[in-house]
Amino acid sequence: MTRSFQKLNEEKVFKDPVHRYIHVRDRLIWDLIGTSEFQRLRRIRQLGTTFLTFHGAEHSRFGHSLGVYEITRRVIDIFKYRSLWDDSETMIALCAALLHDVGHGPFSHSFEKVFGTDHEKYTQKIILGDTEIHRLLNEQGDGFAEKVADVIGKTYPNRLVVSLISSQIDADRMDYLLRDAYFTGVSYGHFDMERIWRVMRSQDDQIVYKLSGMHAVEDYIMSRYQMYWQVYFHPVTRSAEVILTQILHRAKVLYQNDFRFKHTPTPLIKLFEGEMELRDYLKLDESVIMYFFQAWQEEKDTILSDLCCRFMNRRLFKYVEFTPELIGSKDELTGAFREAGIDPDYYLEVDSSSNSPYDLYRPGEEGERQPIQLLMPDGTLHELSQESDVVGSITGMRRTDCKLYYPKDRVLDLPDDSQSKRKIREILGI
Amino acid sequence: MTRSFQKLNEEKVFKDPVHRYIHVRDRLIWDLIGTSEFQRLRRIRQLGTTFLTFHGAEHSRFGHSLGVYEITRRVIDIFKYRSLWDDSETMIALCAALLHDVGHGPFSHSFEKVFGTDHEKYTQKIILGDTEIHRLLNEQGDGFAEKVADVIGKTYPNRLVVSLISSQIDADRMDYLLRDAYFTGVSYGHFDMERIWRVMRSQDDQIVYKLSGMHAVEDYIMSRYQMYWQVYFHPVTRSAEVILTQILHRAKVLYQNDFRFKHTPTPLIKLFEGEMELRDYLKLDESVIMYFFQAWQEEKDTILSDLCCRFMNRRLFKYVEFTPELIGSKDELTGAFREAGIDPDYYLEVDSSSNSPYDLYRPGEEGERQPIQLLMPDGTLHELSQESDVVGSITGMRRTDCKLYYPKDRVLDLPDDSQSKRKIREILGI
Amino acid sequence: MTRSFQKLNEEKVFKDPVHRYIHVRDRLIWDLIGTSEFQRLRRIRQLGTTFLTFHGAEHSRFGHSLGVYEITRRVIDIFKYRSLWDDSETMIALCAALLHDVGHGPFSHSFEKVFGTDHEKYTQKIILGDTEIHRLLNEQGDGFAEKVADVIGKTYPNRLVVSLISSQIDADRMDYLLRDAYFTGVSYGHFDMERIWRVMRSQDDQIVYKLSGMHAVEDYIMSRYQMYWQVYFHPVTRSAEVILTQILHRAKVLYQNDFRFKHTPTPLIKLFEGEMELRDYLKLDESVIMYFFQAWQEEKDTILSDLCCRFMNRRLFKYVEFTPELIGSKDELTGAFREAGIDPDYYLEVDSSSNSPYDLYRPGEEGERQPIQLLMPDGTLHELSQESDVVGSITGMRRTDCKLYYPKDRVLDLPDDSQSKRKIREILGI
Amino acid sequence: MTRSFQKLNEEKVFKDPVHRYIHVRDRLIWDLIGTSEFQRLRRIRQLGTTFLTFHGAEHSRFGHSLGVYEITRRVIDIFKYRSLWDDSETMIALCAALLHDVGHGPFSHSFEKVFGTDHEKYTQKIILGDTEIHRLLNEQGDGFAEKVADVIGKTYPNRLVVSLISSQIDADRMDYLLRDAYFTGVSYGHFDMERIWRVMRSQDDQIVYKLSGMHAVEDYIMSRYQMYWQVYFHPVTRSAEVILTQILHRAKVLYQNDFRFKHTPTPLIKLFEGEMELRDYLKLDESVIMYFFQAWQEEKDTILSDLCCRFMNRRLFKYVEFTPELIGSKDELTGAFREAGIDPDYYLEVDSSSNSPYDLYRPGEEGERQPIQLLMPDGTLHELSQESDVVGSITGMRRTDCKLYYPKDRVLDLPDDSQSKRKIREILGI
Repeated sequence: MTRSFQKLNEEKVFKDPVHRYIHVRDRLIWDLIGTSEFQRLRRIRQLGTTFLTFHGAEHSRFGHSLGVYEITRRVIDIFKYRSLWDDSETMIALCAALLHDVGHGPFSHSFEKVFGTDHEKYTQKIILGDTEIHRLLNEQGDGFAEKVADVIGKTYPNRLVVSLISSQIDADRMDYLLRDAYFTGVSYGHFDMERIWRVMRSQDDQIVYKLSGMHAVEDYIMSRYQMYWQVYFHPVTRSAEVILTQILHRAKVLYQNDFRFKHTPTPLIKLFEGEMELRDYLKLDESVIMYFFQAWQEEKDTILSDLCCRFMNRRLFKYVEFTPELIGSKDELTGAFREAGIDPDYYLEVDSSSNSPYDLYRPGEEGERQPIQLLMPDGTLHELSQESDVVGSITGMRRTDCKLYYPKDRVLDLPDDSQSKRKIREILGI
Repeated sequence: MTRSFQKLNEEKVFKDPVHRYIHVRDRLIWDLIGTSEFQRLRRIRQLGTTFLTFHGAEHSRFGHSLGVYEITRRVIDIFKYRSLWDDSETMIALCAALLHDVGHGPFSHSFEKVFGTDHEKYTQKIILGDTEIHRLLNEQGDGFAEKVADVIGKTYPNRLVVSLISSQIDADRMDYLLRDAYFTGVSYGHFDMERIWRVMRSQDDQIVYKLSGMHAVEDYIMSRYQMYWQVYFHPVTRSAEVILTQILHRAKVLYQNDFRFKHTPTPLIKLFEGEMELRDYLKLDESVIMYFFQAWQEEKDTILSDLCCRFMNRRLFKYVEFTPELIGSKDELTGAFREAGIDPDYYLEVDSSSNSPYDLYRPGEEGERQPIQLLMPDGTLHELSQESDVVGSITGMRRTDCKLYYPKDRVLDLPDDSQSKRKIREILGI
Repeated sequence: MTRSFQKLNEEKVFKDPVHRYIHVRDRLIWDLIGTSEFQRLRRIRQLGTTFLTFHGAEHSRFGHSLGVYEITRRVIDIFKYRSLWDDSETMIALCAALLHDVGHGPFSHSFEKVFGTDHEKYTQKIILGDTEIHRLLNEQGDGFAEKVADVIGKTYPNRLVVSLISSQIDADRMDYLLRDAYFTGVSYGHFDMERIWRVMRSQDDQIVYKLSGMHAVEDYIMSRYQMYWQVYFHPVTRSAEVILTQILHRAKVLYQNDFRFKHTPTPLIKLFEGEMELRDYLKLDESVIMYFFQAWQEEKDTILSDLCCRFMNRRLFKYVEFTPELIGSKDELTGAFREAGIDPDYYLEVDSSSNSPYDLYRPGEEGERQPIQLLMPDGTLHELSQESDVVGSITGMRRTDCKLYYPKDRVLDLPDDSQSKRKIREILGI
Repeated sequence: MTRSFQKLNEEKVFKDPVHRYIHVRDRLIWDLIGTSEFQRLRRIRQLGTTFLTFHGAEHSRFGHSLGVYEITRRVIDIFKYRSLWDDSETMIALCAALLHDVGHGPFSHSFEKVFGTDHEKYTQKIILGDTEIHRLLNEQGDGFAEKVADVIGKTYPNRLVVSLISSQIDADRMDYLLRDAYFTGVSYGHFDMERIWRVMRSQDDQIVYKLSGMHAVEDYIMSRYQMYWQVYFHPVTRSAEVILTQILHRAKVLYQNDFRFKHTPTPLIKLFEGEMELRDYLKLDESVIMYFFQAWQEEKDTILSDLCCRFMNRRLFKYVEFTPELIGSKDELTGAFREAGIDPDYYLEVDSSSNSPYDLYRPGEEGERQPIQLLMPDGTLHELSQESDVVGSITGMRRTDCKLYYPKDRVLDLPDDSQSKRKIREILGI
């Protein structure tokens, strides 16, 4: 039986630079957007430290979440027109689309690395715990909130609904590729989304693509590949990420060693102590982090203050390729740093990005190995890489980019007669 | 004599969604961008509270400042090609373009209203005071920093340089119209910037426009008009601005009355006390403000905590037209609010936007009354509104939009038998 | 009773640069597009001689017709969602939208001037006469073709249907402004079409616009104004139009005087003789015209061959403003041309464009004086110019542009001691 | 010694939808554009029969030629800024860019197939023969015209100049990818042209690309791949091409057999006879072809009239994959067609497109096997496919698409008891 959801008297819209307008016709969607947990996404950047590389990338997860909702809404409309859709699933799918990222915190990737937090778990907690969002979902009847959580957790029985929100070509990725391309201004990231929608079919409980749309899918795969290497894995962004991670790491170490902060990071203490309740987690946003990073420029600990100064003023680490040769000299290099008084625990960091074009994820995304299936004219399914020469030739290919980050300025500022300076420059080839 | 400025070995570029690429060829420009004062602009939104109306408008003054620099650079190139430009002025103009907004603080408009700060004065102080920027400018020779400051202060003798940076059609406005349109996603704000550049001529020490480009100028004027009323003066944005102003106002009052804050706003105290040094001013950014607004949701003062909760979670005031009829009932309305226990000093605010299409400024901009001159084929100058039917017909026209803002939810939550509720609803017609 | 129209098994699409995709779901629409009368629109440029001014404007009426259909389809979808639409009118409206321009011939404006043809009458004949289109429409039942013709002829009783296709803000104009802007590449012509759709309401059997959408309507009016003066009335386009008209005129005169053409314009003879049957009219397209214009460069009549050479190779007439002063000297000028051996009947032509911003039509469109009505919050209707300051100030304003066209090269090539050369140059100020 | 070329008093511009503006500053360029040979390019579509598949693709070679000129101009400006350019070559390069396609006739591909014409030879003849273009070039001094011809013929000694105009990433391809994408409206075809320009270097007399720009080059290669298969090799376009070729073929056969045409194709007769002089060639354009195709719908020869009717009204052939299985049945199929009275010489045609992503050419382009070289940080050159995983994996890959075209409607119209109908349907699987 289809539950009946309340419609708004008048459709509401958000002006959106990517989809022109986001259309909201259901009271529940409108109310979810108005919750404090959802509004908080305005204070969390979509692309973390990327704004230090591409200054346009200052957009937040708020707009992206609306975008994923809007794409899902439009795809469902097309599915309905083709009688591929069970309308009783509509509101579950729309809520899951809107809320799929609601558990993200500030700079999630670094936080998860240092504090072991898990934004996916927080998403579940926000949907199922003591929140405005949960109360709204719960008003829709028993089990509704759980169903939404299941879709996001990929355990929902209707696989079609799940794959709309998370699969190789889901609403999430379609929105972020287009949106991130728009805000950074790069020319990659464009693909013919409407054509992909039009060739989507449903078979064996999964989304498949008509063979005639193969080129649009190929183009999407290649756009994704370019966005990953040109934007998401950009070495300058990763340099900022390295510094950010080191700041969090240093602050935690200092806290654990009873350092007397001039500016005590009250909102972060639970994280330092290893456990953070939802209530406190929801108070975290990028303003909090930036507030402390700025204040900590005045802390007495020179590592903390220097790293914060670097992050706030974009005085990032430089990098060299971490070649096999360099791997062999890593210990020697570490020693030379230590001798020179540049703590290698904070100032010498290897960062590695690795992926294959057909199966790419941004930092922090968990893998999804479901292949893309093409629907052949005879009704059978063929896996994309079998049909597409281009995708076929790159399937299984793996590309890794491994870089060593360090503060070149500190090295160059060492006295010229310093033995360690000479050694460092020799090893790094600078 | 033309001073010689150091070139970069290799041109640097920033990817920019509006101008494709920002090109930097001079060491000085590159170094200025790297100063902490300039990097701070990344933490100040270009359009203040507008992101609460148009979620795309999360872009900062950093990108805008680069954009103004880039436009200036390109226009100078064209002027050079036409031998209209004295090359010894180039670096002064480029620095002024880059730095014209560097004195902006967070939510400048509200801050200036509550604390009487003046971002223009801070711009001057940053260029002339004890800053990284000043040191860099000063290295270019005696008086260089002063000249840059003079251009921004509009007292520089070369009027052509001044009018590139601030006039009716200056690099500042050209960039912000295009940029704000891009990030909000609205379809207004577009005009043919390249054509305007091409018809720019220099006469009597001012920039004039060839008659053949009149339509492009008309289109620019109309774009500006639409952007003002559709974006900059949007009533929802102003509602957020009203609340923000009231928060600052309340915090100041509380501080002056020795309120014991749970979260003492250390970085703001000098403002509350009426004087803030440059050094402290430079530590202010939107993260600081958002940090305290978030924290203050937990303060005991219900006005402060309620207003902060409204701002953070976008529970804004509603508005009605402030009609002459309503003006007559203002006192009665104020009384009813007070009776109902809703403090009218914080919860009842008139906000007025007013401007004429030919002479428009965003909140906080000071006026610039220099008219636009067209260069006729016979070499004489005619003022735009004489030649353009469209502009002529709207010149002198003044449009004012005056609205009364109040928390509708609070009013509707009053008990139904409340006398004041009835009166408020009657007066406001809700 | 709603007639039932056959759906296509699978939706068909056309890739369209303006609307992304044109969607066809009805067999009738698909079949109409496939008729020879509709395919013929591929051979008739949307903007006549404009391609000689804006080289991108080579697009045909075929794409525009699909665009008008698509806009109508989308607006009807929105109307249906709001229950503003009687579904039994859908196919009539879609057919009328698709076919509204089907009677256009090559360079209609000039043809109508010289031969007195009327593209609107031909549209009616194509819909009602012995054509593939008529047969298809007729299969839909008695009176269906007539209804479609009535909508285009504006005599159809349902005014809502009529105003979708022809009114101040109809699907026709929305498409051509966007399309012509796209293909010429000008930055005017953009407006927020989706917002206009969203504020459309139906009242008293006409389309009205919610007050909240007034700015989008204003912006549309101003875009239209810019497109008219910057593109449609461009003096270079009009120069080409003047020459084209003179070629047709000359050919007709020659034919009537039994001139022996090397290349007899068989397909045009009926036009010269004053009567052309539908069957012959449908064979006319721009290839036919261009074929003869090219061939006629070799005719013995020097006026015909020179004019054709000018048109084919873009050696257009120059122009001066037709000032009152010049009006006074027109006879003298004509005399001087005649003396100089430059036939003023073909080489001296006044062309005038005139319109008001609120009520603009491209050459060849008949007027439509229905004003734009805004729907106020209280349910009353106010005419746009009463509410909009900008539109109000330009309403009633009339702008006229009158120019005198002549072959400057011929004048300058006259011997320097020629009396008439001196006189011509003096009068024209060249 | 640098020859000095005359500058225009005032820069002229063309509004261009792809490059915004085309800038002309040299009198020679301006005059070349004004020649009848160059203006003729307005009457030759850039993409031949593609407009029957993508209705937006009605743009001519005129705009493309301006675009190639403009890209060349801008790249030279960048090269000059980097002191990579010998200014005495500028005008030669600009003229070659502008004129590189001037020898194209209508539907060149089909014409070359049927009549053995060669548009490259005509380009040489136009530059070196008795034309307006030659006269203008010749005025620039002895040997100038020859040099321009040599650049286009790729025999010019300065390889840098040659590779600007014709190489894997030349101005020609950059323009056509962007332009064809713009006019068709497809989302492929975009790449970051400005970034490619910025990483261009000159080494060993050839253009190479800095390693840091490898991704932009990759993206260009992939865009090109998508454009080929999605646009240039589109099977519907090829169907139209097949018909067009058959029409020309049939007309030639009829002429050679003394068929009495109702509409004698005078301008084509020299082609039928195997030899066409430049003078006559220059009179050919698409209007001429379309004129006769339209007229020939009335010819008595049913093959000619049917094929013309198909082409004019887009009643194209259908197609099936030409599988090995089908190859085996080809003779049988041919026999069945013949039995059924459908002449297989005109109604059964195999068309094959084949290419590799790294080395793609549109129909009619001759191959260019020069690989793309990357400039490594150490100054050595590496071939692109060695460095780029994506390009590497597709290099050498060859994709072939072979289809059999036939008139499905004719087959289905055969009487149901026809033996040959049954056989044809069986073989073709329809």
